[in-house]
Amino acid sequence: MKQKLFYTILIASFAFSAIAHYSGMSSTLQFALCCIAVIFAAGFMGKATESVAHYAGQRLGGFLNATFGNAAELIIAIFLVKDGLHDMVKASITGSIIGNMLLVLGLSVLIGGLKFKVQNFNVKLAGYNASMMLLAVVALFIPALFAKSFTTKETNTLSLIVAVILVIAYALWLLFSMVTHKDELRDEAGDEEEHEIAWSKGKSILYLLLATVMVAFISEWLVGTLEEFTHKFGLTELFVGAFLIAIIGNAAEHSAAVFLAMKNKIGAAVEIAIGSSLQIALFVAPVLVIISFFMGQTMDIVFTTYELAAIAVSAVIAKSISQDGSTNWYEGVLLLVVYIILGIAFFLV
Amino acid sequence: MKQKLFYTILIASFAFSAIAHYSGMSSTLQFALCCIAVIFAAGFMGKATESVAHYAGQRLGGFLNATFGNAAELIIAIFLVKDGLHDMVKASITGSIIGNMLLVLGLSVLIGGLKFKVQNFNVKLAGYNASMMLLAVVALFIPALFAKSFTTKETNTLSLIVAVILVIAYALWLLFSMVTHKDELRDEAGDEEEHEIAWSKGKSILYLLLATVMVAFISEWLVGTLEEFTHKFGLTELFVGAFLIAIIGNAAEHSAAVFLAMKNKIGAAVEIAIGSSLQIALFVAPVLVIISFFMGQTMDIVFTTYELAAIAVSAVIAKSISQDGSTNWYEGVLLLVVYIILGIAFFLV
Amino acid sequence: MKQKLFYTILIASFAFSAIAHYSGMSSTLQFALCCIAVIFAAGFMGKATESVAHYAGQRLGGFLNATFGNAAELIIAIFLVKDGLHDMVKASITGSIIGNMLLVLGLSVLIGGLKFKVQNFNVKLAGYNASMMLLAVVALFIPALFAKSFTTKETNTLSLIVAVILVIAYALWLLFSMVTHKDELRDEAGDEEEHEIAWSKGKSILYLLLATVMVAFISEWLVGTLEEFTHKFGLTELFVGAFLIAIIGNAAEHSAAVFLAMKNKIGAAVEIAIGSSLQIALFVAPVLVIISFFMGQTMDIVFTTYELAAIAVSAVIAKSISQDGSTNWYEGVLLLVVYIILGIAFFLV
Repeated sequence: MKQKLFYTILIASFAFSAIAHYSGMSSTLQFALCCIAVIFAAGFMGKATESVAHYAGQRLGGFLNATFGNAAELIIAIFLVKDGLHDMVKASITGSIIGNMLLVLGLSVLIGGLKFKVQNFNVKLAGYNASMMLLAVVALFIPALFAKSFTTKETNTLSLIVAVILVIAYALWLLFSMVTHKDELRDEAGDEEEHEIAWSKGKSILYLLLATVMVAFISEWLVGTLEEFTHKFGLTELFVGAFLIAIIGNAAEHSAAVFLAMKNKIGAAVEIAIGSSLQIALFVAPVLVIISFFMGQTMDIVFTTYELAAIAVSAVIAKSISQDGSTNWYEGVLLLVVYIILGIAFFLV
Repeated sequence: MKQKLFYTILIASFAFSAIAHYSGMSSTLQFALCCIAVIFAAGFMGKATESVAHYAGQRLGGFLNATFGNAAELIIAIFLVKDGLHDMVKASITGSIIGNMLLVLGLSVLIGGLKFKVQNFNVKLAGYNASMMLLAVVALFIPALFAKSFTTKETNTLSLIVAVILVIAYALWLLFSMVTHKDELRDEAGDEEEHEIAWSKGKSILYLLLATVMVAFISEWLVGTLEEFTHKFGLTELFVGAFLIAIIGNAAEHSAAVFLAMKNKIGAAVEIAIGSSLQIALFVAPVLVIISFFMGQTMDIVFTTYELAAIAVSAVIAKSISQDGSTNWYEGVLLLVVYIILGIAFFLV
Repeated sequence: MKQKLFYTILIASFAFSAIAHYSGMSSTLQFALCCIAVIFAAGFMGKATESVAHYAGQRLGGFLNATFGNAAELIIAIFLVKDGLHDMVKASITGSIIGNMLLVLGLSVLIGGLKFKVQNFNVKLAGYNASMMLLAVVALFIPALFAKSFTTKETNTLSLIVAVILVIAYALWLLFSMVTHKDELRDEAGDEEEHEIAWSKGKSILYLLLATVMVAFISEWLVGTLEEFTHKFGLTELFVGAFLIAIIGNAAEHSAAVFLAMKNKIGAAVEIAIGSSLQIALFVAPVLVIISFFMGQTMDIVFTTYELAAIAVSAVIAKSISQDGSTNWYEGVLLLVVYIILGIAFFLV
C-alpha cells in the first residue's frame, strides 16, 4: 500500500516537473514541483542503492551511492564549464563539499543519534577519510596561496598539474580501498544484514540507474529555474551556488544517508557523506579542470578565501567529530551549527 | 593550626584590600593587597568546590567551579560593555580563553606530572572538549573573516545571530553532558574518592557562594587599580587585558585545578581548564554580545587577527596534548612555552 | 663480495669528488660526482647507525641518526649565516623540515608498505611527535604574524627570545624522552632484533663518526657547486634552497629511513624522519638565530608566507597519517603527493 503510494507520487511528480519544464511554466511553480520530484526520486535512489549495496557489500554500496549522486552534479557542472561560468562551478563544488560534510553528515548523525544513544563505525575508515580530506584541503589551498604572485598562465599550469596529480591520487585511493586494503576498511558495525531485500540483483542495478537518470533530469530542470528564482528573491550567486544548488543537488546522498543512520548503519551514512565530499574535491573538481583545458579555456583551481575557509572549517570539524569512530546526537548539532553559521555568512556577503 | 592560619590571612587580606580600595590608597599598594587576597580567596574557593564536588560528583563539581570562576569575569565584563569598552572586553575574553587552556592547564599538567609519572582521564571527554573548542574557534573566525567585506550593520547582524546560535549550542551541550550522555562522560580515573570531607553539603554550598562573592569583589577592586597601574609601568591595553586581567581573573580556576592535579584528579583539572575556556567562548562572549544589543550599542564578535591567532593556537595545542586522555610533565611544559611566546608577542606589540 | 664492491665505490666516489672539488672541475661534473658519493656515504652511515642502534637501543639509535644527519646541515648553515645569507638559511631550514616529513617519511612508508601490508609503531611516540611539531609550527608562526607591526629591533628581540625558549624546550624534551619517560616511548614493534651485527660497539661508533664526516665534506662540496649549477639551469634560490639542497642534505636520513622501513622497523624510520624535522625546527633553527646574534647580525626567525604554509601543511598531513601508529603504502603516496604539489608551486614561484 505504502509502497504503491510512494511510486505513484514519484512518477506523478516527475511527470509534472517535466511538463512544467517543457511548457515553460512560472519559475516558482517549476521550482516547487522539481523540489517534490527530487525528494521522491532521491528516496527511490536510496532504496535502490541499499538493495545494490546488499549484493555489493556495504562499502561498495556507499561508494556507488556517492558516485551516482555526483554523476548528476558532474553533468551539470560540465554544462556550466562549457558556458565559461567558472565561478559558479567553483561555488557549487564548495557547496557540495561543505553540504555533504556538514549538512548530510550532521543530519544523519543527529537523526541517528536521537534514535540510538551511540552509533559506532570503523575507526580506521574515519582516519583514512580524514587524511584524504586534508589532502583535498591542501591541494586547494596551495594554488590559491601561490596564485597571488603568479601570472594567469602559471596559475593555469599549476591548476592543471595539481588536477592531474589529484586524479592519479584518487585512482590509487580506489585501488587501495577497493583492492589492496579492502578487508581492513570494511565496516564491521553494519555487517549484520537485515534480510529485507525487495529486488533481484539485476533489478536493483536497473532501478539504481533509472533513479540516477531521473535525479539528473530533475536536477537540471531545477538548475534551469534557479537564475530567475535568484533574481526574484534577491539572492547572491555565491549563496545560490554554494547553498541552494548544493542542497538540492545532494538530496540523494541526503535521504540515503539519513535512512541508513536511522537503521543504525551510521558507517554507511558517514561513507556516503564524507565519500561524496572526497569524490567532489579529489575527482569531480580536477576532472572539470582537465575538461575545461580540452575545451580550450582552462578553469583554474583557485578558490576564493571564503570558499577555502568554508571547506577548511568543514574538514576540520568533520574530522574532529568522526575520528573516534562513534557519533551521538550532539555531534550532529555541532555540524549543523557550523553549517548554519557559514550559510548566514554566505547569505550576508 | 594550618587551617586557622589560612582563614586568618584570607579574612585579613580581604579586609585590608577593602580598606585600601575604599580609602583610595596608592594603586600599587591596592594592587599588591588584592593579589594576596585573591590568591587566598581562590584557595578557599578551591576547598569549597572540592567539597561541593564530593557531593555533586566530580564532573558537576568541575562544571560548578568553571561557572563560579567565570561569574566574576562576566560581571566585570558587563560593566566594561556598559562603558562601551568593547576592545578591552574582547581582549580579556581572549586572555581568559588562552589563560585557561595554556596557563591553567599547563601548570596543572606540569605540577601534577612532577608528582605522578602519567596521569589519565576520560578520553571521550577530551574528544568532546576538542570538538567544542573547534566550534568556538570556527564561530569566532567566520565573523572576523567575512567582516572585511561587510558594513557595520551586517557585521552586527552576523555577530548577533552567531551569538544566539552559540548560546543555543551551549545549552544543548549542557543537556548532552549533564542529561542524555552523563554516564559516558564521567571521569572514571577520579572516582576513587578520598573521604576527607570537612563540611556538610549545605555548608559547602554556602562557602562556595561566599568564596565566589569574595573573589568577585576583590577582582573588581583589582581591575579598578589596573588603569593607573598600566600607565605607571607603560604597558599596552592589549597586554593588560589579555594577560594581567586574565591571569588574576582566573586565579580561582588556577589554584583549584593545580590542587586537583596534585591529588591525581587530572580529569577534574582538565575539566576546569578546558570547561572554563569553553564557557567563556561559547557562553560568556555571546551573552555579552546579546546584552550589548539590549543596551543599545551592539558589540560585534569580530576579534583582531592577533587575538584569533592566539585562540586558534591555544585550541590546537591543547587539543593535541589532551586528546590521548593522558598527561605528563613535558606536556605541561609545552603548553606553558606557547603561553610565554604569546605573552612576549602581545607585550611587544 | 657485495660488501667489498660497496666500500670500493664509497671510497672511489669520495676520492673523485674530492679531486673534482679541489682541482676545480666543471660544476656539473662535480655535482654528479658528489651526488653518487653522498648516496654511498649515506648508505655507509645507515649501516653504522643501525649497528650503533643495536647497542644503544632503537630509539637512541634513531636520535643519533637524526643528530648525525643534521650535523652536516648545521655546519653548512653556520657558513651561510656568517656570509649574511639569511634567506637561503631559512629556505634550507624549510626544505629540511618538509623534506623529512614528506619525502623521507613518504618514501619510507611507501616502500615499506609495498613490502608489508600494514606496519605498526608506538602510537604514544607519534602523539608526542605531533605535539612537538605543533609547537614548532606555532613558534614559527607567531613571530611571522606579529612581525608585520613590529620594528626590526622588536622582531629581532622576539626572534632571540623565541629561539632561547625553543632551545630550552628542546633540552627538556631530551630529558623527557631519554630519561624520565624513556620506557614509555620505546618502540615495541621493532624490539625483536635480528642479530646480524657486523661490528663491535667501538667500531660502530667510529664508523658512524667517519661516515658523518664524509657526508659533511661531500655536502659542503655539493653546496659549493650549487650556485653555478642554479644559474646554468635557471632555477630560483627558493626552489634550490628548499628542494635541491634539502633533498641532498637529507640523503643520509633518507636511505637510512627507507632501509629501516624495508626491514619492517617503521618505528625507527618515523623516528628518523619526524625526529630530524623536529631537531631542525626546535634546535638547529634557534641555534642559528643565537649564533647569528653573537656574530653581530641577528637573523630573525620570520619565515615567508610560502615557507610557513609549506611547514604547516607538512606538519598537519604528517600528523594525520602518523597518529594512528600504523602505516600503509597509500599513506606514503599521500605524503609524496603533497610534497610534489609543494615542489611544483615553489618551482613556479
